[in-house]
Amino acid sequence: MTSEKKVNVGLVQMRCSEDKAVNMATALSRIESLAAQGAQIICLQELFLSRYFAATEDHACFRLASPVPGPDTEPLQASAAKHKVVLVASVFEKRAHGLYHNTAAVIDADGRMMGIYRKSHIPDDPGYYEKFYFAPGDTGYRVFKTRYASIGVLICWDQWYPEAARITSLMGAEILFYPTAIGWDVTASDETNSEQFDAWRTIQRGHAIANGVHVVAVNRTGQEGGQSFWGGSFVANPFGKLLYEAAHDEEALPVVTLDLASSDRYRTLWPFLRDRRIDTYSPMTARYLD
Amino acid sequence: MTSEKKVNVGLVQMRCSEDKAVNMATALSRIESLAAQGAQIICLQELFLSRYFAATEDHACFRLASPVPGPDTEPLQASAAKHKVVLVASVFEKRAHGLYHNTAAVIDADGRMMGIYRKSHIPDDPGYYEKFYFAPGDTGYRVFKTRYASIGVLICWDQWYPEAARITSLMGAEILFYPTAIGWDVTASDETNSEQFDAWRTIQRGHAIANGVHVVAVNRTGQEGGQSFWGGSFVANPFGKLLYEAAHDEEALPVVTLDLASSDRYRTLWPFLRDRRIDTYSPMTARYLD
Repeated sequence: MTSEKKVNVGLVQMRCSEDKAVNMATALSRIESLAAQGAQIICLQELFLSRYFAATEDHACFRLASPVPGPDTEPLQASAAKHKVVLVASVFEKRAHGLYHNTAAVIDADGRMMGIYRKSHIPDDPGYYEKFYFAPGDTGYRVFKTRYASIGVLICWDQWYPEAARITSLMGAEILFYPTAIGWDVTASDETNSEQFDAWRTIQRGHAIANGVHVVAVNRTGQEGGQSFWGGSFVANPFGKLLYEAAHDEEALPVVTLDLASSDRYRTLWPFLRDRRIDTYSPMTARYLD
Repeated sequence: MTSEKKVNVGLVQMRCSEDKAVNMATALSRIESLAAQGAQIICLQELFLSRYFAATEDHACFRLASPVPGPDTEPLQASAAKHKVVLVASVFEKRAHGLYHNTAAVIDADGRMMGIYRKSHIPDDPGYYEKFYFAPGDTGYRVFKTRYASIGVLICWDQWYPEAARITSLMGAEILFYPTAIGWDVTASDETNSEQFDAWRTIQRGHAIANGVHVVAVNRTGQEGGQSFWGGSFVANPFGKLLYEAAHDEEALPVVTLDLASSDRYRTLWPFLRDRRIDTYSPMTARYLD
């Protein structure tokens, strides 16, 4: 087994302003700080360039979108090249007139746009009207062989689906990144909030365990209207153990060192991939089996 | 949404003797106790009729197996009828000369054998030489419409596979039962033990969350040779919250009340089933995607 393969990941858990330019400036400044601390792969939270606009259905919000690559990713490409960091950036993509996606761009450490992943699972719930804004992604699941690691990127609601984590891991991802925007209804009880946060963290730790990969979840923080985004960004090792966890109500800017060789150790001791009964999994593509 | 559908589940976490007759008598006595406490569906631990024989590869151990239905399940059928309880019983099945399975029998509350599930995922690791004993199951995943609930049964190593939980849930399971025999190497550190137990619990709580079903895991306890079976049987609600958890090193005999209507509430508030991207899941049947 490989003895060690260290990589430093940086997480940007931030509050967002209503001004895209301010959010971009904040993000660029955080990237610079993380790079100075030794971060090699940096993940921004979901839709970091704006407030979480999907809290309402408003045609005016489509003006927040841009082509990818485009003006929302170009400054990030320059920053990636300058600081020699890989960036995972979640943006609002305008693909064509009337066709928009919730998209993550992956930029390599030389500033090159490696490609995009478009969010596959689109929620639609009170305060999260994403089906109004985003067409379901058609990129399929993707792995990016960046300078420092092979990474998979999934986005927010994707995190509740073991299928997305499994397929991305089978494609060779060493780390699953989940840019996220999830929060508590400000009127809900502490008990409900605690249960929701714990479920969110637990299912993603489960993906780490099932697949023997590191999981990095990066969530926004701060109150926006009736939502209190719950922060709590975290990093789990390939057996689901928490290596880092952010506070709920503060910005956070950690650098966390992962040992990617630990996937080899855990997967050898717990050889789940060896024993998958792939001859029995075709019902996974059914909506329901009644 | 349905307002309430209560069911009482009983768990038998026990130590095993080397004598099958003693273990059967213990199990029958525990079933009687649980029924007296109001249990309606009772789950026994994996291979409760014997010590965990797969700790070594020994042809003599095949003598522990019996046909199903057969002498290992008939006393349970009588007990189920007498106490009007549903039983989930994990036994060592002799299917034909030289063909054995790790099998769970489900007996309805009138004593009728409803059917069997044969363990799909078979481990083989130091101390758990199951591939020597058990052919991989060919029943597929199964749901049993018992008198008190529609239940899915999966067995031990199956618990590490989100696919098994998903398919069984899509078939209509309201509760997933996991009879289990998992323990710590007596020479391992507390840190390793804690991480392993937590991973085991976390991934199964994740299945509850992903599928909006209750999960009931029933593990053995007691030291057998170099393995200290870790007990810790638990019940999780459809959002992964622990409703009950047993100690590691003691027998346990709890009755836990589940509200099956809570699946409807959680699945409506967190509509993961609505948004599955079934058009993207066909790679689930691949061994690896390199």
